[in-house]
Amino acid sequence: VTPEAWLDANEDAALKTLKAFCAIPSVSTDPAYATDMANAAAFLASHLTAIGLDHAIVRPTDGHSIVTADWLHAPGAPTILVYAHYDVQPPDPLALWESPPFTATIRNDRLYGRGVSDDKGPMMVALTAIAARIATNTLSVNLKLLIEGEEECGSRNLNLFVADHAALLAADWVLSADGARWRADLPTTTVASRGLCALEVTVKGADRDLHSGRYGGMVANPVAVLARLLAGLHDDAGGIAVPGFMDGITAAISLDDVPFDEAAQAATLGASALTGEAGYSALQRNWLRPTLEFNGIWGGYAGPGSKTVIPAVAGAKITCRLVPGQEPERVAKLIATDLRRRIPHGVMPGVTVDVTIEDHEAMPYAIPDDHAGLALAEAVVAEIEGRTPLRVRMGATLPMCDILRRRLGIDTVMFSFSTADEDYHAPNEFFRLSSWRTGLRAWVTLLGRAGPGRTAS
Amino acid sequence: VTPEAWLDANEDAALKTLKAFCAIPSVSTDPAYATDMANAAAFLASHLTAIGLDHAIVRPTDGHSIVTADWLHAPGAPTILVYAHYDVQPPDPLALWESPPFTATIRNDRLYGRGVSDDKGPMMVALTAIAARIATNTLSVNLKLLIEGEEECGSRNLNLFVADHAALLAADWVLSADGARWRADLPTTTVASRGLCALEVTVKGADRDLHSGRYGGMVANPVAVLARLLAGLHDDAGGIAVPGFMDGITAAISLDDVPFDEAAQAATLGASALTGEAGYSALQRNWLRPTLEFNGIWGGYAGPGSKTVIPAVAGAKITCRLVPGQEPERVAKLIATDLRRRIPHGVMPGVTVDVTIEDHEAMPYAIPDDHAGLALAEAVVAEIEGRTPLRVRMGATLPMCDILRRRLGIDTVMFSFSTADEDYHAPNEFFRLSSWRTGLRAWVTLLGRAGPGRTAS
Repeated sequence: VTPEAWLDANEDAALKTLKAFCAIPSVSTDPAYATDMANAAAFLASHLTAIGLDHAIVRPTDGHSIVTADWLHAPGAPTILVYAHYDVQPPDPLALWESPPFTATIRNDRLYGRGVSDDKGPMMVALTAIAARIATNTLSVNLKLLIEGEEECGSRNLNLFVADHAALLAADWVLSADGARWRADLPTTTVASRGLCALEVTVKGADRDLHSGRYGGMVANPVAVLARLLAGLHDDAGGIAVPGFMDGITAAISLDDVPFDEAAQAATLGASALTGEAGYSALQRNWLRPTLEFNGIWGGYAGPGSKTVIPAVAGAKITCRLVPGQEPERVAKLIATDLRRRIPHGVMPGVTVDVTIEDHEAMPYAIPDDHAGLALAEAVVAEIEGRTPLRVRMGATLPMCDILRRRLGIDTVMFSFSTADEDYHAPNEFFRLSSWRTGLRAWVTLLGRAGPGRTAS
Repeated sequence: VTPEAWLDANEDAALKTLKAFCAIPSVSTDPAYATDMANAAAFLASHLTAIGLDHAIVRPTDGHSIVTADWLHAPGAPTILVYAHYDVQPPDPLALWESPPFTATIRNDRLYGRGVSDDKGPMMVALTAIAARIATNTLSVNLKLLIEGEEECGSRNLNLFVADHAALLAADWVLSADGARWRADLPTTTVASRGLCALEVTVKGADRDLHSGRYGGMVANPVAVLARLLAGLHDDAGGIAVPGFMDGITAAISLDDVPFDEAAQAATLGASALTGEAGYSALQRNWLRPTLEFNGIWGGYAGPGSKTVIPAVAGAKITCRLVPGQEPERVAKLIATDLRRRIPHGVMPGVTVDVTIEDHEAMPYAIPDDHAGLALAEAVVAEIEGRTPLRVRMGATLPMCDILRRRLGIDTVMFSFSTADEDYHAPNEFFRLSSWRTGLRAWVTLLGRAGPGRTAS
């Protein structure tokens, strides 16, 4: 029996398993779901064993467990490390779901439920293709599986886990079942993601909110100081004004060949227009240029009506998205230095400014253009979908790619068949069943061609 | 019997009445206390009748009632309008009170309780002195009483009430039992207060918070736009940069003769130093110069850790304290115009900025230097306290003074004997019993000298 025939016979059973997996509310960010997280890991280990993988083990970390397994019966052949995650976002707001979030439900050739698109559906695509190859004795590549439970809360324990298990995880390259494709109307392969660094600024004046009449004119206003400090981080044209921030960044490439309708994108966001750094298209700004965003600001009274206080404290959260050539810690320090340099000590002697670099950072990542695994994935997609996928980047951050490259020296090929419009992280998350079917065939095909002589790291 | 002897005999009973009055939690800002507010007004009207005043009437407004009364049995003599308020601040935070807020308690020659200093104690000083004069048939001036119940929530209905009752309230001048004295170590008379205007600025970008990775670089950040708009309202030296803002303000007078220790004041506020507009002392800045303060700012995520969003909206509350020469509506419009002029339409086409002028304004106020009522009050204090009071101003706002001048054409003499350090608006509000005794004698003396030939409006 061929793997394709096996798929035809077993696809419905795999979908049933996916539904059962989705019934476990494996929400990693909320401690109330701790038992469900453990149940999901156990379910997964059991399923990995059932489909013929060896050494399926639930491995504890300081947070949620990581599940590993392997199939190493192709001596001399390359080893692929398959990455996925079994945790999901919280289901809130519950009232907006049209069917219960943890009862995966098919409507209009789509499967609806929390986690179906991110990442249980794409993971089950990978596992079912692996099952097809093992069941038909046609797997000619070695496999290792790394399935974490903290992707939705920052992959906090992954870095240390990978460092501690470098030999266990050693492989030629990484094939990721996570990382949604850009759009539904165009086959794409994501080849790069941006990095991240984070800071918090706190400005303190008096030791309590003061009556703005009785003390107004005597003391510094922390909101005023904060506004000036933040305003100075950008120039008049909206560009980043922090000295040294852009150092090391190579010139942005043209993306004119990537179809993108800026007006349509603005409309979906409810904004009258897209905007940003001068001289770049919206796509260049999102994929190839760094950003310095204010994620939040606070201070004083924010309720209805007026309260005539001089706030005692004001603060803001800053994160940057980084591109190749930038290193998170260096960039965060440049921002901190710039902010501290501009504290108006002379004008505002009564305030103190505290700038903290947060423990939340990731390197930008890009797979080498000529990576053999990438070329293989593209060839498979071209064959299955009838169209060579377009190489695209993403503005978001995937800490896992850099962690695996730094710790194991290997690159990651994104091979998820979910799509960015599938409302993951939102109510009514769905996974296109057409993507389920396409993904199964693509993974089976890729696994069949990843053997000796086909790819090199 | 002399009024002074009457006082000696009746002072303790008056203090008992004050305690009973303070037991009624007349909190005007919280609808939960509506019945208590009505009870306080009824208590007051009953007491006004009991001490010999006529026409004590609880008069409804759109908010809390105003209590009026009169004693008009001195034909040919001047008429004084006595002002006070019967509402108090909320008692929160309750846990910090050393004795129950609505059980007035004497410790160390101080009366502790909510409202004892602001304004039930000073009001009862005035009423007891009036009682002494009426009981001893020595009142030779006509009196009208205006006691409102909304001072702690902005005197919202006072303006309309005074306009509607101009004949009822007509008088030669106003003697206020509200308006704390500046400090405990120095007899002072407050002769001016600052005005107020208020605005709110709201900046909107996309129609929801956006993922700062997936959209960062494509859309404007409302916090960034807000920070630039706010920062532009002041210059690098901390002065107000709004064009036209300072127009009409006369040069600040010297206050070198007013004892004031800037370092000691900074220490009480927990600030390392006082600061503000260059070229002026802290006291000049607080009494004689206008301010433009940010009372609150908000936008995006303000919780623990980081949340990588581009906020959909950011906003700030602004209030200004105004000095003679400035008119609230004109100043508010100048600020709104400046903010709107600087909206970065070209750089940030995706944002909208909404600037609202709030319905919360008051004119600055100053009593004429040569006001006869002021001279009388100063002479009485000099006699009772052995020291001519120093004329001082206040940085805060008293809407009542301007309302009565505009509506009735008369000026207000501040004659409260509470002190600004008595923790009104805070836990453990207290009223010095020494001030109670001094105040009673001062009011009795003033009422005895305010008759025909003594003062003119």
